Amino acid sequence: MDIEGKDTWKYANAGADTVAISSSVKFAVIKRVEREITIDEICARYFEDIDIVLADGFTLSDKPRIIVADSSEDIESFKRGCEVLAVVGNGFGLDEVEGIVGKIRLKVMG
Amino acid sequence: MDIEGKDTWKYANAGADTVAISSSVKFAVIKRVEREITIDEICARYFEDIDIVLADGFTLSDKPRIIVADSSEDIESFKRGCEVLAVVGNGFGLDEVEGIVGKIRLKVMG
Repeated sequence: MDIEGKDTWKYANAGADTVAISSSVKFAVIKRVEREITIDEICARYFEDIDIVLADGFTLSDKPRIIVADSSEDIESFKRGCEVLAVVGNGFGLDEVEGIVGKIRLKVMG
Repeated sequence: MDIEGKDTWKYANAGADTVAISSSVKFAVIKRVEREITIDEICARYFEDIDIVLADGFTLSDKPRIIVADSSEDIESFKRGCEVLAVVGNGFGLDEVEGIVGKIRLKVMG
């Protein structure tokens, strides 16, 4: 929908602050914002029906994290005092999906 | 974001029910849905900070409408008992933007 020439793109380009498109299987919305929305706001407003949210980025958040790094300096700098569920690269391998999922499952379901 | 190969596309393709992307100027979310969301739900949830929502489609809604048609049969069939703000094609011309905007403004601001 964010593609030049599409109706939704035309509406956004014409100045619409929010553009949405809706069907029986998919709903999408694009909003102009004046500041980056926090991860808590995003989860509360858009993921309230979702059990597990995986976020990429949001390095300043205080959420439990999965760190992808192989040096202990990088691991420490990405940790930023947060709970670490798993370290990938130095610990889990990049393809150890089951093991990483197990850590997420343990965190969420206990 | 709905483009093959993009990270957001990969997440949706991997089975995520909701995918979002966030920056300091734009926020976008794509949700899988099990039925088409009504226009009232869309407005309440995603356009609550917006003064005027123009919707294309939603022919079964009961909202005031702008009809684009040139025959009186088409006008009547698109009207479906709703309030009509303007008829474009048979009344306003396609390029009479100011006049059509005037009708919207009158409806919203009185």
